[in-house]
Amino acid sequence: MAIRLGPNQYGKAGIHVVRVQRDTPRHEIRDLTVGTSLRGDFSRAHVDGDQGDVLPTDSQKNAVFSFAKEKGVDSPEEFGLALADHFLATSSRADGARIEIEEATWSRIDVDGQGHDHAFVQTGGGTRTAIVNVDGRGADRTAHVVSGVCDLVVLKSTGSEFHGFLKDTYTTLEETTDRVLATSLVARWRYNTTDLDWNGTFAAVKALLLKQFAQIHSYALQQTLYGMGESVLEEFRVIDEIRFSAPNKHHFLVDLSPFGVDNPGEVFHAADRPYGLIEATVLRDDATDPGSAWHAVPGFV
Amino acid sequence: MAIRLGPNQYGKAGIHVVRVQRDTPRHEIRDLTVGTSLRGDFSRAHVDGDQGDVLPTDSQKNAVFSFAKEKGVDSPEEFGLALADHFLATSSRADGARIEIEEATWSRIDVDGQGHDHAFVQTGGGTRTAIVNVDGRGADRTAHVVSGVCDLVVLKSTGSEFHGFLKDTYTTLEETTDRVLATSLVARWRYNTTDLDWNGTFAAVKALLLKQFAQIHSYALQQTLYGMGESVLEEFRVIDEIRFSAPNKHHFLVDLSPFGVDNPGEVFHAADRPYGLIEATVLRDDATDPGSAWHAVPGFV
Amino acid sequence: MAIRLGPNQYGKAGIHVVRVQRDTPRHEIRDLTVGTSLRGDFSRAHVDGDQGDVLPTDSQKNAVFSFAKEKGVDSPEEFGLALADHFLATSSRADGARIEIEEATWSRIDVDGQGHDHAFVQTGGGTRTAIVNVDGRGADRTAHVVSGVCDLVVLKSTGSEFHGFLKDTYTTLEETTDRVLATSLVARWRYNTTDLDWNGTFAAVKALLLKQFAQIHSYALQQTLYGMGESVLEEFRVIDEIRFSAPNKHHFLVDLSPFGVDNPGEVFHAADRPYGLIEATVLRDDATDPGSAWHAVPGFV
Amino acid sequence: MAIRLGPNQYGKAGIHVVRVQRDTPRHEIRDLTVGTSLRGDFSRAHVDGDQGDVLPTDSQKNAVFSFAKEKGVDSPEEFGLALADHFLATSSRADGARIEIEEATWSRIDVDGQGHDHAFVQTGGGTRTAIVNVDGRGADRTAHVVSGVCDLVVLKSTGSEFHGFLKDTYTTLEETTDRVLATSLVARWRYNTTDLDWNGTFAAVKALLLKQFAQIHSYALQQTLYGMGESVLEEFRVIDEIRFSAPNKHHFLVDLSPFGVDNPGEVFHAADRPYGLIEATVLRDDATDPGSAWHAVPGFV
Repeated sequence: MAIRLGPNQYGKAGIHVVRVQRDTPRHEIRDLTVGTSLRGDFSRAHVDGDQGDVLPTDSQKNAVFSFAKEKGVDSPEEFGLALADHFLATSSRADGARIEIEEATWSRIDVDGQGHDHAFVQTGGGTRTAIVNVDGRGADRTAHVVSGVCDLVVLKSTGSEFHGFLKDTYTTLEETTDRVLATSLVARWRYNTTDLDWNGTFAAVKALLLKQFAQIHSYALQQTLYGMGESVLEEFRVIDEIRFSAPNKHHFLVDLSPFGVDNPGEVFHAADRPYGLIEATVLRDDATDPGSAWHAVPGFV
Repeated sequence: MAIRLGPNQYGKAGIHVVRVQRDTPRHEIRDLTVGTSLRGDFSRAHVDGDQGDVLPTDSQKNAVFSFAKEKGVDSPEEFGLALADHFLATSSRADGARIEIEEATWSRIDVDGQGHDHAFVQTGGGTRTAIVNVDGRGADRTAHVVSGVCDLVVLKSTGSEFHGFLKDTYTTLEETTDRVLATSLVARWRYNTTDLDWNGTFAAVKALLLKQFAQIHSYALQQTLYGMGESVLEEFRVIDEIRFSAPNKHHFLVDLSPFGVDNPGEVFHAADRPYGLIEATVLRDDATDPGSAWHAVPGFV
Repeated sequence: MAIRLGPNQYGKAGIHVVRVQRDTPRHEIRDLTVGTSLRGDFSRAHVDGDQGDVLPTDSQKNAVFSFAKEKGVDSPEEFGLALADHFLATSSRADGARIEIEEATWSRIDVDGQGHDHAFVQTGGGTRTAIVNVDGRGADRTAHVVSGVCDLVVLKSTGSEFHGFLKDTYTTLEETTDRVLATSLVARWRYNTTDLDWNGTFAAVKALLLKQFAQIHSYALQQTLYGMGESVLEEFRVIDEIRFSAPNKHHFLVDLSPFGVDNPGEVFHAADRPYGLIEATVLRDDATDPGSAWHAVPGFV
Repeated sequence: MAIRLGPNQYGKAGIHVVRVQRDTPRHEIRDLTVGTSLRGDFSRAHVDGDQGDVLPTDSQKNAVFSFAKEKGVDSPEEFGLALADHFLATSSRADGARIEIEEATWSRIDVDGQGHDHAFVQTGGGTRTAIVNVDGRGADRTAHVVSGVCDLVVLKSTGSEFHGFLKDTYTTLEETTDRVLATSLVARWRYNTTDLDWNGTFAAVKALLLKQFAQIHSYALQQTLYGMGESVLEEFRVIDEIRFSAPNKHHFLVDLSPFGVDNPGEVFHAADRPYGLIEATVLRDDATDPGSAWHAVPGFV
């Protein structure tokens, strides 16, 4: 009846680093929240309380800040890859490192039609994410990058139907050929390479996702997501797989008839909970092995 | 030693109504979260448990939804005024009504350079707010409107100093002539009239606030706020007073010297708590009487 | 058309200090989140950008931490009074200081029926709050203390009715003689003295509020709140006024009849938004002047 | 270059049901927030937009409410098992169902030393969780239950050391033999049977976790977690595996020396971010196959 340590990882979460590029009077800023973690054989730490194999999470944090200066931040993905390799180099008992990054979006403040040199306003429209997993070192090294966007809140005021569904004893929902469709999208896509234009590809994938959400006539959130994913895979050969997590943010048509008021699809109650939750993966038949790409990604697989 | 009921109000909070204007294929949406409240002599309800004077908060909610269709939503301010008057008409024991509205910002999704007809993405850059207070009816009616913006997160990567401050036993802060200045601004301005272009004025005030934040060389957040407010009052005769609440979102320069790395204003730790909190009012010497304009506005006065 | 600075205040928010009393092996902990603010004539800072009158918020934070050692933390109220006096002594342009404190509740972990000496678990059941306002110094000094509790989530599964209310065009709510009543209570009471047993009185008032919530047969949340407040004023001569803010956390009886299932008050949908919001003050006829006691307290007065 | 649907699931999240047991005047309440999801071959819905296989999430929600009356709520685990079996029976294309439940804790309000019959106060001390996964039907049915607790905030004011750790270029952390150890624990344990006293076992496991946190002299959070897990497995034969996710809620000793004040482990700054994050699994060598037990559980494996 032996008891033992199973899978484990440790690191530092919520490292909020802002990097200002100020080589010229026209500054640039990158605003990252970084999480690091190492996995491997850390049984001495757990079972014996001996920390000789454990690089403190405080040192991990320090490295994140210092790398922001030493390496710069060209993209979250590259930044994450550099950090993961560093941690594997410095921590001999780790066999994998995971870096998770969220990037806040800042735009230049408009002053008389011009973007200001060093003043910025935070804008929404989704948060960029990157998850990097590296296993091993040297010849044995494999690296996986999953990029994505979260908190991308989108809505269609028409062009969405829902009918013909399965019914059981507890079904009271009415069928509809015109409803509001809204979600706060999380999309994550897995690259099959680390040799690409991270920033340009991110922007292009996000733009395509939005465009397809707008253009697909929806018969269910499932079908919309699938169509969005299919388009991304068709257009981007560097992506092998895309995963969606999409709350169905219900907009209920309000019954105004008790007040003698007609409501032909104009006034909705935007409800919080409960909400539908649709999760799906779209991938290539010949997708590469994901390895640890999805390690510790909250999800449904 | 008599005990009695003092000031009181009641209403419905968090009414999330989405109004779709669909008269043409090019839809418009307004996304409001509305709070209503009535104040007056409701002692029967409190002291005796007799609800004969109390219009249920459920009825208030119903009115909000129905008005979104009956009156439409041209602006949060006008919508709030209509609701306040309605509640005062329907509830004879109320002597004041307060409507608080937050409006989420949606932009058209870009499809090949064109904004889509009925697909939208939620964008940030601050939430529009409106607080309407109406007292009395008919000849005795007075109405106050405070418009504003919250969650307006702005940052300057230079052009901000902080020095020459008062020092006491507990002062360890170093003076600086170059720091990051960032805040998540709440600004609320009080109109001296209800006869104005609500949407146009809101947009213009917000743009001016951003521009001034960018352009004012800062010697403290206090001075930046004052300058922003002064500009608004100078430019908008319809505004008598503006109030700011601004957390000083500290960005601490990270000491990288232990790693032999120089950090000349490039890498910052964006801290959460504790944070400075600066609150200030800027107003005209000849400002009109605010009356109930600031009733129940969280603040510092 | 002169423009000027109006009311203003500044300070440090979110100072999270944990004080361990370890004079004996049986430790005690106090876990406070403190906000400080100073008000007065700070126009030089705002208008001229001259910080000579401004004690940095960083120094305020330092004082909070140091006072936790120098003065100890017997009660949030006493701790706040000491801080307020200190800030007024050190900052000559301030004419008032406000200290706001929330205290997290920790209980000893149970080990075989005994509370452990130095291991604790955080428990809920409401957060203790204290707001201290001091104006002036020396002979002119006046001090006000408002204590309270927030996040006190309570529910009655019966003993609550709601009927006989005012009806208008938009009223569809049905009357009921048996419903669930639930709220997340904020209660704040104003003392007429600073010479009292802060901890004992807090505990006794909170216990009485809970007891009265349980025992009052409710005809509306308004009447429950009034009854709770009246009891507190009757029992505690040191309290002149009590204010409540109470969301009506609606529990809707679920209609199970489409499934042939009866639901006599047994299954409820606990909704989030919208919610009723009931706010009321109960006070003595001969209450002392509140002065600045309620300064910057979010509320409805 | 074919593209296809991969793993997917869909359901309803955030169903907040409160069940009152009122057979006698002494009521009981169970307060559950339930999420449901179905997985299987739903490609028609995704690829073709045909919803014939899709039981609406609205019907799932209805079933949750109705089951609260039809079956009652003896324990979250049993309630989840009944729901999962129901969904698999009603939805022929699903091959698995997952039910996730959080239970809020209510205690009777104390009235003169007695717990009230029908008035309750919500208490903290951790939220009970249950995750049920059922695959297949009839002879092929397998069921997995993972119970747990989250938001269990615990702290030790001494009895915690951290030293002897690995050092690299970026290590500046000082070693310590006496620090505050605090975490907001998530623990989830996997049962190897569904035939047990769910409520009694939950209470006993939680009590043991707390006791061990208190009693283990800590050389790192890793070692504390391992010791807690080992004890659970030693005491409960029905549990095969336990997983922890534990943020290291740093309490930094405040340097008061600039103010001439000594601080021997008495005043701490409780920081929010960044924080360490320690995740570990403890399991039996002869643990049963987890199957889908951990399906879609946020984590690190």
